[in-house]
Amino acid sequence: MKLEKRFLNLIIILVEPQGPINIGSVARLCANFMVDELRIVSPRCDIHSLEAQKMALKGMQYINNCNVYETLFDAVGDCDLVLAGSGKLESNNASNEPIQESLESATRWICNFQTINKLAFVFGREDRGLTNQEMLLSHKTFKIGTNKNYPSLNLSHAVSIVLYELSRLSNNKNTKNLVECDLSSTAEIEICFSEMERMLRKIGYLLSHTSAARISKFKKYIIRAKTSKNELNMIRGIIHQINWALNNLNKN
Amino acid sequence: MKLEKRFLNLIIILVEPQGPINIGSVARLCANFMVDELRIVSPRCDIHSLEAQKMALKGMQYINNCNVYETLFDAVGDCDLVLAGSGKLESNNASNEPIQESLESATRWICNFQTINKLAFVFGREDRGLTNQEMLLSHKTFKIGTNKNYPSLNLSHAVSIVLYELSRLSNNKNTKNLVECDLSSTAEIEICFSEMERMLRKIGYLLSHTSAARISKFKKYIIRAKTSKNELNMIRGIIHQINWALNNLNKN
Repeated sequence: MKLEKRFLNLIIILVEPQGPINIGSVARLCANFMVDELRIVSPRCDIHSLEAQKMALKGMQYINNCNVYETLFDAVGDCDLVLAGSGKLESNNASNEPIQESLESATRWICNFQTINKLAFVFGREDRGLTNQEMLLSHKTFKIGTNKNYPSLNLSHAVSIVLYELSRLSNNKNTKNLVECDLSSTAEIEICFSEMERMLRKIGYLLSHTSAARISKFKKYIIRAKTSKNELNMIRGIIHQINWALNNLNKN
Repeated sequence: MKLEKRFLNLIIILVEPQGPINIGSVARLCANFMVDELRIVSPRCDIHSLEAQKMALKGMQYINNCNVYETLFDAVGDCDLVLAGSGKLESNNASNEPIQESLESATRWICNFQTINKLAFVFGREDRGLTNQEMLLSHKTFKIGTNKNYPSLNLSHAVSIVLYELSRLSNNKNTKNLVECDLSSTAEIEICFSEMERMLRKIGYLLSHTSAARISKFKKYIIRAKTSKNELNMIRGIIHQINWALNNLNKN
């Protein structure tokens, strides 16, 4: 079942997958559900191996055509809306964790938008999931409801459930009250926050050893606020102006 | 996520699975979604192999405790409600094919019942699915909506999607207008039809070479009619009475 046309490009992104069987299985699922593109961040195995091919079957085209990226930041660079699966969370610092939603609620949210040019779903490492930093490269993180005593789904099964849930959306013919998707991309937010971090360190608000944690908190808040492109530009404008003032006003 | 309590026992049945990776993957899913029992009909590989174990992880208990059956008829013998996945249909005789529903509609149907003691989901062979005869051992067959050009899901992905869809039901708190599940079991229907077939051949209504096809049509109709235990008993009573009459009245 093809996704609704208003989701123009559906992209599946795997971060550092370790198992060729998983990669092949995900490629087959991409064919089963007419995904537009498979992207892989720093694979930890041979993605073209015989094991991957055996599982991919007619989905092998997705592996042959897949773009490989060094970091997740590079992989989501052109994506308008990014959602990340978060079966396993780094739990050291609870306040840094993005708020999780159920898969169902996350996909319902997507449904509110008129058009999404590039919609990406990110899946983490088989053993460790995504880091908190990587999760902050997504607009929302979601969790698939499983047994609390053994919640950890195999990577390809998580992908299959997400694609099925998305295909169910296509049956939802309610197109009333749709809103324009004008969110800042997570790549834009990331760039804005690098600039902000540099500036805040320059003025002595952030110290190098606590900088990452504090900026993460702020970034999480901005993502949760569903920041539009205009709003993010405003923040960037302020940062640039502060930088200009620091460089020029001090001279007088 | 545990299924609602009114589904007392959820059973996954694999028919002649060929791949140990698939069996292991399904066992892990059983643990992820708190399935009650895994049953396997005539496995075509070593279900305890290292490959299966590697995929099963904490789900290995399901393989260790699984009951192995010779035929699907044996495996569904004690099941109250049986649903079968039908990604691949034998398409020689369209009229013999049970009516397919979407997975969503099939699970919605299950939701109408107050209590189901043993609810079974049957999944066919990786390459050939279920035979038409096997599908007639289910109350309903369902299909998962995928790409028409490449609809064939890997076995374990089909299982993952079904278990996810069932877990979504648990969120449905609407318990109004539930009806008692009083359907004849598919095993009871099968036994009734063996008796009917024997009788109809005895009276010359069925000929041996067309018997299977005609009785399948009739059976399909009876399954579709959602026959209750009482109604099936009525049919069996008529058959027994005809048999009695044939044996006794002719003597006079």
